Amino acid sequence: MHTGKSYTLPQFIFWTRRSIYVLVVLALVPVALHEFLGLKWLIVPWGVVFLLGTTVALSAGFKNLQTYNRMQDAQQVWSSIVSASRTWGILCRDLVPDREGAREFAWRHLAWLAALRHRMRRVMPWETANRAANAEYMRGRAVPEREASLESELGRYLSPDELAQVLTAGNPALQVLALQSRQAQSLLAQGALAAGAFADLTGRLREFQELQGRCERIKHFPYPRQHAFINSLFVGILCVLLPFGIVGEFERLNALADGWTRGYMIWFSVPLSLLITWMYTSLDRVGESTENPFEGSANDVPITQMSRDIEADLRQILGESSLPPAPRAANDIAL
Amino acid sequence: MHTGKSYTLPQFIFWTRRSIYVLVVLALVPVALHEFLGLKWLIVPWGVVFLLGTTVALSAGFKNLQTYNRMQDAQQVWSSIVSASRTWGILCRDLVPDREGAREFAWRHLAWLAALRHRMRRVMPWETANRAANAEYMRGRAVPEREASLESELGRYLSPDELAQVLTAGNPALQVLALQSRQAQSLLAQGALAAGAFADLTGRLREFQELQGRCERIKHFPYPRQHAFINSLFVGILCVLLPFGIVGEFERLNALADGWTRGYMIWFSVPLSLLITWMYTSLDRVGESTENPFEGSANDVPITQMSRDIEADLRQILGESSLPPAPRAANDIAL
Amino acid sequence: MHTGKSYTLPQFIFWTRRSIYVLVVLALVPVALHEFLGLKWLIVPWGVVFLLGTTVALSAGFKNLQTYNRMQDAQQVWSSIVSASRTWGILCRDLVPDREGAREFAWRHLAWLAALRHRMRRVMPWETANRAANAEYMRGRAVPEREASLESELGRYLSPDELAQVLTAGNPALQVLALQSRQAQSLLAQGALAAGAFADLTGRLREFQELQGRCERIKHFPYPRQHAFINSLFVGILCVLLPFGIVGEFERLNALADGWTRGYMIWFSVPLSLLITWMYTSLDRVGESTENPFEGSANDVPITQMSRDIEADLRQILGESSLPPAPRAANDIAL
Amino acid sequence: MHTGKSYTLPQFIFWTRRSIYVLVVLALVPVALHEFLGLKWLIVPWGVVFLLGTTVALSAGFKNLQTYNRMQDAQQVWSSIVSASRTWGILCRDLVPDREGAREFAWRHLAWLAALRHRMRRVMPWETANRAANAEYMRGRAVPEREASLESELGRYLSPDELAQVLTAGNPALQVLALQSRQAQSLLAQGALAAGAFADLTGRLREFQELQGRCERIKHFPYPRQHAFINSLFVGILCVLLPFGIVGEFERLNALADGWTRGYMIWFSVPLSLLITWMYTSLDRVGESTENPFEGSANDVPITQMSRDIEADLRQILGESSLPPAPRAANDIAL
Amino acid sequence: MHTGKSYTLPQFIFWTRRSIYVLVVLALVPVALHEFLGLKWLIVPWGVVFLLGTTVALSAGFKNLQTYNRMQDAQQVWSSIVSASRTWGILCRDLVPDREGAREFAWRHLAWLAALRHRMRRVMPWETANRAANAEYMRGRAVPEREASLESELGRYLSPDELAQVLTAGNPALQVLALQSRQAQSLLAQGALAAGAFADLTGRLREFQELQGRCERIKHFPYPRQHAFINSLFVGILCVLLPFGIVGEFERLNALADGWTRGYMIWFSVPLSLLITWMYTSLDRVGESTENPFEGSANDVPITQMSRDIEADLRQILGESSLPPAPRAANDIAL
Repeated sequence: MHTGKSYTLPQFIFWTRRSIYVLVVLALVPVALHEFLGLKWLIVPWGVVFLLGTTVALSAGFKNLQTYNRMQDAQQVWSSIVSASRTWGILCRDLVPDREGAREFAWRHLAWLAALRHRMRRVMPWETANRAANAEYMRGRAVPEREASLESELGRYLSPDELAQVLTAGNPALQVLALQSRQAQSLLAQGALAAGAFADLTGRLREFQELQGRCERIKHFPYPRQHAFINSLFVGILCVLLPFGIVGEFERLNALADGWTRGYMIWFSVPLSLLITWMYTSLDRVGESTENPFEGSANDVPITQMSRDIEADLRQILGESSLPPAPRAANDIAL
Repeated sequence: MHTGKSYTLPQFIFWTRRSIYVLVVLALVPVALHEFLGLKWLIVPWGVVFLLGTTVALSAGFKNLQTYNRMQDAQQVWSSIVSASRTWGILCRDLVPDREGAREFAWRHLAWLAALRHRMRRVMPWETANRAANAEYMRGRAVPEREASLESELGRYLSPDELAQVLTAGNPALQVLALQSRQAQSLLAQGALAAGAFADLTGRLREFQELQGRCERIKHFPYPRQHAFINSLFVGILCVLLPFGIVGEFERLNALADGWTRGYMIWFSVPLSLLITWMYTSLDRVGESTENPFEGSANDVPITQMSRDIEADLRQILGESSLPPAPRAANDIAL
Repeated sequence: MHTGKSYTLPQFIFWTRRSIYVLVVLALVPVALHEFLGLKWLIVPWGVVFLLGTTVALSAGFKNLQTYNRMQDAQQVWSSIVSASRTWGILCRDLVPDREGAREFAWRHLAWLAALRHRMRRVMPWETANRAANAEYMRGRAVPEREASLESELGRYLSPDELAQVLTAGNPALQVLALQSRQAQSLLAQGALAAGAFADLTGRLREFQELQGRCERIKHFPYPRQHAFINSLFVGILCVLLPFGIVGEFERLNALADGWTRGYMIWFSVPLSLLITWMYTSLDRVGESTENPFEGSANDVPITQMSRDIEADLRQILGESSLPPAPRAANDIAL
Repeated sequence: MHTGKSYTLPQFIFWTRRSIYVLVVLALVPVALHEFLGLKWLIVPWGVVFLLGTTVALSAGFKNLQTYNRMQDAQQVWSSIVSASRTWGILCRDLVPDREGAREFAWRHLAWLAALRHRMRRVMPWETANRAANAEYMRGRAVPEREASLESELGRYLSPDELAQVLTAGNPALQVLALQSRQAQSLLAQGALAAGAFADLTGRLREFQELQGRCERIKHFPYPRQHAFINSLFVGILCVLLPFGIVGEFERLNALADGWTRGYMIWFSVPLSLLITWMYTSLDRVGESTENPFEGSANDVPITQMSRDIEADLRQILGESSLPPAPRAANDIAL
Repeated sequence: MHTGKSYTLPQFIFWTRRSIYVLVVLALVPVALHEFLGLKWLIVPWGVVFLLGTTVALSAGFKNLQTYNRMQDAQQVWSSIVSASRTWGILCRDLVPDREGAREFAWRHLAWLAALRHRMRRVMPWETANRAANAEYMRGRAVPEREASLESELGRYLSPDELAQVLTAGNPALQVLALQSRQAQSLLAQGALAAGAFADLTGRLREFQELQGRCERIKHFPYPRQHAFINSLFVGILCVLLPFGIVGEFERLNALADGWTRGYMIWFSVPLSLLITWMYTSLDRVGESTENPFEGSANDVPITQMSRDIEADLRQILGESSLPPAPRAANDIAL
């Protein structure tokens, strides 16, 4: 997540520079055809371009609304995870009579968070974080889940025995929740947990299960590929046709021009074509970069930092020494 | 569900090629009337086409928003089914004292999933998966629920006695839930289940009932036919009128043309008409292909694969040997 | 609800034919004024028509979004009624020790459904099902709640004593729920119902109360009349002005025309005006026909059929002989 | 709430006539400048007007969507109040052993409704019900909460002692709920209420608290003034500029005109300007009139009538004689 | 929150005057280039400007919808905090047997509110309340949380011992909730609280945890910076290009002009360019000023005043003397 004031124009231009190279070529094509091959008639009527443009604007608007909602959804789930984790910490402290038992429940919860995070930050085929432009922007900001192995992270929170069980499971996060439930059950059976406390704890575990399910839904169901494709297709077609339309408009302006510009007006279409097509591709790119909130990009939900904050909160609740302060949001990007 | 990077342009053109044939004809009609019958006056003023075009773009935008929401809804329901099923597995393991009894509850739950899936993948009159274009695209990717009979699938999970009861019921999935409830009740009566555990289990069963109801709503209530119809109608009218509008615009361009193109400019309207009308029909088709998330098409919610994943999760929880790995997402399509 | 593949164009034209008559006249008016009265100057600049047209398209789009949501809302409520009714059936069977008592609870629930349905299918002043066009389309498909009296329907489910109480109440459905609650209370007092079972049953009754409230909200609060009015007003104004605009555009085309068409181009404006105005009125009509999901029209939520399905489900659960199969969805319309 | 078929055009014109006076003047200004001062050049290019018009249409569309949602929200809250009140009545009758005690609980609930209604119908600075046009339309339809004092209404339901406590409280409705809670508590302490019944009743009271909070939110948070302002500003600017644009278009039509109209075409711009600007102001007014659902206007949620219906329902449940029938929805307006 | 009738035009112009200065310059640039440097050909075809304008209008519309939803979300959370706080007060009074204990629970709740408020009113990098225009508007209206220290506010509600614990915690509000939970737990252990009462209280504490989480989500996740940036970028580009487009349109009007205006028409483009670009920047500014509902600006959710109202409600419930009346909404701005 970008946590600064705003992106800056240079950053943005740098980020989109690969598109700009292509768009410059597209803007030059019709001018070249007009000037060098003399194909004066090769224009697209502006009315057609305009119709296309409004259609693309509308469809990009709806797309950005939908990807924004995906992002919002992801933020809500993780915000609920934060609240539920704090409640979990307080419940453990107050309901589990044995102090060490409470600590175990809390630590295992941190293991769940770590397993969930690693699951969220896997690479899916439709994610775009590895595209040249995005990867370049994130250079020097490593995705922590791809730096540290799950094993080393879980090792901080789980006993070796449990660690082995979790690592061999197909779905480690689910396995951690299953361990929590079993532990609660066995404390209940031993009489170390009151029935009400047991109900409270398992109710929370059910909630974590649902929150994990919601995370997985966002991660595993991409923004429908058919919607994504048709939007990019529309933008692409617009970028090809628009310069032919603008060239036509500038041919007309020749009448107004005099002096050295007469007859050369058409060259002024290049920067304008470039600007407009760049705006539409940028709009599409912004939507695309919001599609996958867990891909490890600059627009992610900062789940690593949130997990760290949860750990700090749980330590505060349990009265433990707090974490060493972590470097936060390097260059305004929190992951 | 398409799980790859994106659709490709050739795939998309192949998928829509039947529309393209029709659109080529529609694009040629006005040119033919102008050139061969000399009906130079037979054009539609561009202003009219433009008004129509923005209206169609808007109404297609809203339609795609609504069908997207249907898809989202279906994803949410099945994502909740996954979470609730895992919780069910953990509850069975921890609350049902008898290990065999726990296994029975879990297996019967898989029977519910199978019955629900078969219900979801029935063919409804308004579904479009069997249209030539869609069926062709899915060739070689059989819908598993139409390959294996419900009886054989349920036979893996139910005792012969229960199987008979379920198969004769009007609504097999409901019957499975009724069997689960009866079993819980009889364990409670035998004292084999604590009151709290019973409440927990029946609470989950109520949740499954609701989730089944939400699935059935999406399956049984189509996207309102009057909305679907008017959208297709609008797109159709636009595809007929637009070429007459573009022809008019190109007639004007004759003034700019010289050399061999003079007088033939109008022929250049054909590819442009085709491109624009193809874009609008594709937009409509994309919306339509998102309408029915359980029809067995390339854009379905992959309920077969999700059920398989649930089975693997339940086996992991119950400590059983896991399933043989299934072929997943052949050619990027998960069902 | 229309349960077929789609509406057909002839059906749609037939349904809207009364509008078409009016629109033909509106399309002829400007031509007549131009040709017979020579008022060549009486046109509306196309720019004005276009502005109006996009405004109408936008406002119709938003209206259709809102009425679609009303429809969705109604579908969700009734889908929840189906799920909750099945759960109710299973609860009655499993929690009420006395088999006859269970049957009574279930039958009384069917009485609630019948009373609610009759309430939903009453005629409200703002409903449009009785308009000539709609009534004609539904000819031969009687609304069952207007055929059979509430008394005869309730008589199938209630004892004569209860029937009398329910029929004299201002709100029969509410009275049925009050009877259910009283019965549960008296079983609890007699010790025939466990405390947990009582809580479960009354929890469900509370849910039915809420579902009834949500139904009544949709039924009793129309789509705001001020919004409905302004939309129809806009469409009406557009239908009057648009032909004057198209006439103006066709006057310009006279320059392109030669031979017999020269000077008569303006007559070609009539079909085009008609087509475009028909599209806008149809868009408005489609929105309007989705406004009231319980009015007994072709676009209703099929609550009669759903109630029948619930009855079949309850019979299956209670092990009773099932209903004789009902004629379903005559001519693709389910009510 | 308007409960009739629809608003009629004369009603609507009468309601907006003050705007019409202003708009006539605005439509005449450019004509006068052209004709009497000869400022032929003083026009606004139509392209500019068009851009402005689509922007205003879009922003008015979004505003109406948002105010519609406020209205929906208010309807949902009050619909929930109806359902919860009926459930409250049934709970009181069945759970409170003493018949008089049950009646007291129900009557106090009606006092809560009355206090809440009076709170909702207070006048807020941003409400528009007192504007000349709105006040005029509502003449003869007094807002009941402004006719009868809260004291007299509460006096029907509360003992003098409680009445005094409630009237001196800052938030009477909250005080009534606090009294209900205290009464439930004291019955529990006396053993006159079972623990389960107590939990049920206080659960309902919590729900009423939340419903009151939701009502207060809608009442106390206006539609954001910055959004409301910018919309009205845009509409105002459009109404000033549009006639200058239409005048320009009609100047061009002079070429088409002959006979007596030649040179006078510009006068025909007046009715057209008026019509279009009137449509935009009406759209804005409709949105504005939906903003505040409790202000006592013709578009309110009819909370007085709903409260009366709740009283009738509670009397039916408690077996009391029903209310004398109230005059309902005078002139199709329910309050 | 602005609680008055509306913003006034002078207020609005004053607020946006810094933009106006820039826009005047932008509007003068093309005129100067035309008139003084003779670059008559330097215009942007109006079609291009129009396409850009509709795109900007659409994207600003969607942005304002999204920021409006953020604001709504914040209002809903705080409205829920009000309801839940009142319920908390009633619960404390009725469930905690010891009057002093009840008062302590309520006072600690006020401490939670204070801590939460201070957290909400911290300054984030992306907030715009400190921009010159906004800060100027708010001059004389200090944000209370930046005037009084958290320590002095908490000191009113907490014992010195608890105060120390809360102030040293990383998240004071969370620490207060942890203290509440511990206190409830210890009362339960002492037998001073019934099990049901304990469950009720801890259920409420869980709810406060969730509400705090929702507040923090809105505060800590800005409106996505990439969306905010691209919107402002689009508006900026439009403001640069639009004057070049309007200049082109006015050059054409020279033909209509005569007398002294002939040849000077172009100067009339300046006010029009200014007006239109001002409208678009204002639309963007209104959206921006709604983005961050807790930044201490004129469009904030008035959390200080709401907290004060909660304190008054709690005092009323507990029967304490009420607060001295506070100055409310100075100059129509409530904070």
